[in-house]
Amino acid sequence: MTLSDDLRASAAELDAASPLVGVRDRFELPDGVIYLDGNSLGALPRAVPDVVADVVRRQWGHDLIASWNEHDWWGAQTRVGDAIGRLVGAAPGQVLAGDSTSVNLFKCYLAAVRMRPGRRVVVSDPGVFPTDQYVLESAARLADLEIVHARPDEVGALLAERGAEVALVSYSQVDYRTGELWDLPGVTAAVHEAGALALWDLCHSAGVVEVDLDRHEVDLAVGCGYKYLNGGPGAPAFTYVAHRHQGAFDQPLTGWHGHARPFGMEGSFEPAAGIERARVGTPPLLSLLALEAALTAYDGLSVADVRAQSLSLTRWFVECVEALVPGTEVATPLDDARRGSQIALRHPDAYGVVQALIARGVVGDFRVPDVVRLGFAPLYVTHADATEAAVHLRDVLAAGEQHDPRWAERATVT
Amino acid sequence: MTLSDDLRASAAELDAASPLVGVRDRFELPDGVIYLDGNSLGALPRAVPDVVADVVRRQWGHDLIASWNEHDWWGAQTRVGDAIGRLVGAAPGQVLAGDSTSVNLFKCYLAAVRMRPGRRVVVSDPGVFPTDQYVLESAARLADLEIVHARPDEVGALLAERGAEVALVSYSQVDYRTGELWDLPGVTAAVHEAGALALWDLCHSAGVVEVDLDRHEVDLAVGCGYKYLNGGPGAPAFTYVAHRHQGAFDQPLTGWHGHARPFGMEGSFEPAAGIERARVGTPPLLSLLALEAALTAYDGLSVADVRAQSLSLTRWFVECVEALVPGTEVATPLDDARRGSQIALRHPDAYGVVQALIARGVVGDFRVPDVVRLGFAPLYVTHADATEAAVHLRDVLAAGEQHDPRWAERATVT
Repeated sequence: MTLSDDLRASAAELDAASPLVGVRDRFELPDGVIYLDGNSLGALPRAVPDVVADVVRRQWGHDLIASWNEHDWWGAQTRVGDAIGRLVGAAPGQVLAGDSTSVNLFKCYLAAVRMRPGRRVVVSDPGVFPTDQYVLESAARLADLEIVHARPDEVGALLAERGAEVALVSYSQVDYRTGELWDLPGVTAAVHEAGALALWDLCHSAGVVEVDLDRHEVDLAVGCGYKYLNGGPGAPAFTYVAHRHQGAFDQPLTGWHGHARPFGMEGSFEPAAGIERARVGTPPLLSLLALEAALTAYDGLSVADVRAQSLSLTRWFVECVEALVPGTEVATPLDDARRGSQIALRHPDAYGVVQALIARGVVGDFRVPDVVRLGFAPLYVTHADATEAAVHLRDVLAAGEQHDPRWAERATVT
Repeated sequence: MTLSDDLRASAAELDAASPLVGVRDRFELPDGVIYLDGNSLGALPRAVPDVVADVVRRQWGHDLIASWNEHDWWGAQTRVGDAIGRLVGAAPGQVLAGDSTSVNLFKCYLAAVRMRPGRRVVVSDPGVFPTDQYVLESAARLADLEIVHARPDEVGALLAERGAEVALVSYSQVDYRTGELWDLPGVTAAVHEAGALALWDLCHSAGVVEVDLDRHEVDLAVGCGYKYLNGGPGAPAFTYVAHRHQGAFDQPLTGWHGHARPFGMEGSFEPAAGIERARVGTPPLLSLLALEAALTAYDGLSVADVRAQSLSLTRWFVECVEALVPGTEVATPLDDARRGSQIALRHPDAYGVVQALIARGVVGDFRVPDVVRLGFAPLYVTHADATEAAVHLRDVLAAGEQHDPRWAERATVT
């Protein structure tokens, strides 16, 4: 047996012992593709197409405007929010599905600083996903805030020095580039110690990490519907506001859906009670109800089992890479407690490597400047997939396929 | 022949002579329903279901992340925007589809006042749709603005007095309740005379009125995708920014999709050139591409013909009502130049009248406090529909069906 065959045999054993055996069948996956980009766009759950067709033909086409009541379109944002809540450890009534992550960040930034009058500092990660930073810049300009950067593992020192000025600490739970999982419980506790609020961006953790928002007394959170939650391209995002903050959650996008009496058509805004005050305008129902159907792929699964599978997959992939392509730089922490559900490899020709892998049917993505980013969506990626991905990586590098002029040309424009 | 039969015969002649003969076949409409609520949720265009199924199964399910390039998901917001632009008289590159009307209003309010530093007054209609008012209140609080109310037909006096303080005048082109069409060209010219900007909400005019944004030198506009544009429940809305203002359009929702180099993952926000700076986060593609397919229902039609059909329908419906239910109060102006595409009837039991009509298959809606609102979507409503609706209205009132205890009970909670 070759080394690859040895690894394949071990992978088969791991897959057979997986707590998620059979769950992959809940997804439509194209033949010949190893899909390691579920952290960018989740695969299609089999439950979705029929639901979407029903929403289009029967609910919209036949029942028309009556569907707002008959099919409870009005309740979809909270209903889907509660379904997401089950995956992130939020009791019902605290999560709202709707709008994009960027829009939801804007709501939360301004609502948070309004809850801490007199404090004008917002702490952010210098390595945060750009939209979090861009939207925060805008909020800071509107509300006269000071943005201070500190990595999540260095926020203690900052809080010790300037804690009394800090209104909000806003972090992603998992770094979108390196896949590092930050210490949400510890950071949240430290933030509270300083009298500030903690906002967590769960875009790369919802659905794959035991987030436990309620248990760790997180204040606010946002996240994405189209990555590990598999809600489809541009699926609505979500917002979490802990029950204890809802009365004070005074967000700036005061659309009529967030009014206490939306059909009263009243002259002045009065926010709805509870999480519904995070609503804005009419949500995109085809996308929202597709997300609802997609979440049924999690039915009967425990987040603990999903997390165990995720860790096993990423651990196994790194083992395969170390065996097949020794010396590869792995940017993701190998410590389970510090790893999300992706593996980031650093390579000087990362763009070409990603393109060459895609040409072989191994779909990951490139992140500037030098990251090969491979996501392991535990519901449908197997240890066998991880093994084959590592074999292809070895073969790409052995043949120098990353230097193919096709990628060299495109690298400059992406 | 009875009076009803006379009217039916005339309606048949009007339908036969319509410039839109056959266009109704572009829509799926349920049997036995006269749908006069396309101003709340447009009917289902036949082109939509197959497109949505393809987006779900092939683009998302099979092509996965590659669809961003292969199916130009990235370009969808501007592509759909340009398609809407053709219906509202905007040359390409000035309309962006995305987000909700409420979110787009927020962008425009703040961007507009930033274009007029030193001017702190925003003028709004006291009868505007609530979301426009609510979002404006929020913008005013953030940017220290003063909101002054004046009806569109009274804005001249206000501008004469306080014009130099006015940054923005924000109006709906068609009143959502009464259906009154305001003088967009005249008001816009008066606003410009005062050195202010004009923002028009086209929710009830896009797709049925010759808006001619470019011709009338409108500065900013927003509108809805799910009413007369038939984009489906919660379809993305749109934003128009005239070319001459795009360089200064400094909007507050600075998500990564609106960055000059979104995949550069840069540390600070720099807006994209052109209308793309109105982008925020990832748009809900199932809903957005459904809207794109829906807009093909307008293929080959001139907005002038659509408008002619709309005016003919509403004129005819009022004639039928006057003949069959004399004395009914019509809140909508009878002057063609002042009428949108709906007829609002005032009735003390309006809620019950609407419910009784719905029970008979005539679907309109109720607006507080006393409006029976009936929309005439010219692409699929016929003069025959209008006639039957009036006949049903006569029969409802003759039998006192508006007093049915079923509606009496519900009237208090809606």
